[in-house]
Amino acid sequence: MTRAVDVSLVSRGREEAAAVVFRAQLSLWQARVNAALAECLPAPQSSPTRLHEAMRYSVLGGGKRVRPMLMFATAQAIGLGESDVERAACAVELLHAYSLVHDDLPAMDDDDLRRGRPTCHVAYDDATAVLVGDALQSLAFELLVSGENLPASAQSRVELVRLLASAAGSHGMAGGQALDLAAEGMQLSLAEVDAMHALKTGALIRASVLMAAACAPALDARQRQALAEFAECIGLAFQIKDDLLDVTGDSAQLGKATGADQRHAKATYPSILGVPAAQVRLRGLHERAEDALVSFGERADSLRSLAHWLLARAN
Amino acid sequence: MTRAVDVSLVSRGREEAAAVVFRAQLSLWQARVNAALAECLPAPQSSPTRLHEAMRYSVLGGGKRVRPMLMFATAQAIGLGESDVERAACAVELLHAYSLVHDDLPAMDDDDLRRGRPTCHVAYDDATAVLVGDALQSLAFELLVSGENLPASAQSRVELVRLLASAAGSHGMAGGQALDLAAEGMQLSLAEVDAMHALKTGALIRASVLMAAACAPALDARQRQALAEFAECIGLAFQIKDDLLDVTGDSAQLGKATGADQRHAKATYPSILGVPAAQVRLRGLHERAEDALVSFGERADSLRSLAHWLLARAN
Repeated sequence: MTRAVDVSLVSRGREEAAAVVFRAQLSLWQARVNAALAECLPAPQSSPTRLHEAMRYSVLGGGKRVRPMLMFATAQAIGLGESDVERAACAVELLHAYSLVHDDLPAMDDDDLRRGRPTCHVAYDDATAVLVGDALQSLAFELLVSGENLPASAQSRVELVRLLASAAGSHGMAGGQALDLAAEGMQLSLAEVDAMHALKTGALIRASVLMAAACAPALDARQRQALAEFAECIGLAFQIKDDLLDVTGDSAQLGKATGADQRHAKATYPSILGVPAAQVRLRGLHERAEDALVSFGERADSLRSLAHWLLARAN
Repeated sequence: MTRAVDVSLVSRGREEAAAVVFRAQLSLWQARVNAALAECLPAPQSSPTRLHEAMRYSVLGGGKRVRPMLMFATAQAIGLGESDVERAACAVELLHAYSLVHDDLPAMDDDDLRRGRPTCHVAYDDATAVLVGDALQSLAFELLVSGENLPASAQSRVELVRLLASAAGSHGMAGGQALDLAAEGMQLSLAEVDAMHALKTGALIRASVLMAAACAPALDARQRQALAEFAECIGLAFQIKDDLLDVTGDSAQLGKATGADQRHAKATYPSILGVPAAQVRLRGLHERAEDALVSFGERADSLRSLAHWLLARAN
C-alpha cells in the first residue's frame, strides 16, 4: 500500500508538481493581501462603527483577489518583491471592492448575493452601502500616498494615483458601468461589447499590471509595453471567461447566482458569439497574452500560471 | 436731483465700497472656477454620453463655489496667484459635487431639488446618479496628479492627494454622512453634533484651505497652523449658519426646500441649542476665525470678507 502511494507520487509529472506549487503560491498571496487589507481598513470599533464594520464586511468577505495576484506576479516578473507592491495591491482591491458594493445596489444590478454572502446593502442598508463604496474609493487613493510598502519617490506615487484614477473614472470602470447600464435590453455589436468591457473590467486589470510596473521606475519601455499588452489580453479574456461561467458555471461553486446576465438581458460574449466561438476567442487572447511574456523568461512563470488559472477556472 | 445722487455716492463709506469690490471679486472667482470646471469635466459628446452629460449637469448647475473661493482667498493671503490653486480648487469642488449627488439619492436624503433644479437622480436616474458621484470622485484625484495649474513638485501633489483623500473618506466627509444617518431620530449631545459636522462638512472646508496652503510648500508652519485654525472655525460656523438658514431661511432664495432637517428629524444646532444660542456660537466662531488671520495683515482681507459673506449670508 505504502509503496503504491510512493510510486504514484514519483510518477507525477513536473507540470503537475508546478501546479501544486502554484496553488500554494496563490494561497500565500491571498493570505498576504487579506492580512494587508485587514490592516489598512479602519478598525471596526472606531467611529463611525457601522460604516467601518460594513467596509470590512465588504472587503474581507472572501474574493479571489485576482488583481493583487496579478500585481504580485508582475512584481516577480520584473524583479520586485511582494512588499514593493503590497500597498498598491490593497488600493486596487479596495477600488474593486467599492465597485462591487455599488454595482450590487438596488439602483444598479440589485444583487442579493456576492461571494456566497448577503451583499452589503442587504447585510446593512442601501445608504450605508453607498457610503461604503464612497469611502473605499477615498481609502484606495489615500493608501497610495501615505504609509510604507510603496516606492519612496513622490514621482512614482503620483504615477500610481494617475493610473488608478484614470482606470476608475468615467473613461474607465465607472464609464464601463454606464455603458453596461445603457446596453441593457439592447442588441450590441461585438465592437460595442468589447469597448464596454475594456472599460468595465479591463481598465482596472490593466491598471493592476501597470501599477506594479510603476513600482519599478527603472523598467524599460519595451517591457512596460509588453506588460500592457499582456494585461489588455488578460482583461478581455477574463471577461469572456466570466460571461461563459455565467452560462455554463455552477452557482454553488461560483458563490453567486448564475444566469444573471440573461435575467438582466445583458449583451455578453456567449450571447453575441455563441459559446463555442467565445471559447475560441478566449483561447486566442490567452495565446497573445503568453506571447507578450516571452522576453521575461522564467521570471514570468507566475504570470503564466496565473493567466492559465484565471482563464481555465471553473469558478 | 443729480446733485443729491452724487452726494449719496460720495458719502458711501469705505467699507461699503470694499463690499462692492468684494462682491465683484466673488463673481470673478465664480466665473473662473466655473470655466475651469467646464474645461476639466469630460466633453458631453464623448462616450459614455449620458454619464458625461449627467456629470456636467451635476457640477455646472450653479452652486456658490464656497470651497474654491476659500482656496483663491487663501492663495491671496499667502502670496500665491489664483492659477496656482485653480486645479486643486476644481478637485475639491468635484468632490463636493459628488457628495451632493449621492446625498440626494433616494437611499440617502431623498431630495428632489438642489440649487433650484431637479437633483441628478431625478433628472437622469438612480443608477446614473450613483455612477456620476463615483466618477466625480475619481476625476477629483485625477486632476491632482495630471495637467497644469498645480505645483510642479511631485511631493506637493502627493500632499494634495493625501489631504483630499483623508478629508473625503470614512474619517472625513463619508464618515460624517454615516454619523448623520445613524443620528436620524436620535437625541444627540452638542459634542456629538460637533463631531459629526467636523467630518461631514468641516473636513472638506479645512482641506480646501490646507490644500491651497500645500500649493506653497515654503509656507512656514506657524502660518499653516493659523490657516488650519481659521478653517476649523469657518467649517463649524458655516454648518451652524446652514442649520439656522434651514429654520429661518427662505426656500426661494436658498433654491432648496427649507425645514428639511426637521422633516428628517435631524439633530441641528438650532434644535439642540435653540436659535439665539446657535447665533451666539456662530458669532464666537467667526471672531476666532478673524483672530487666526491677524498675522497675515491686509493680504487676508479677501479671507475676512469671505468669512463675513459666508456667515452673514441670507442663502
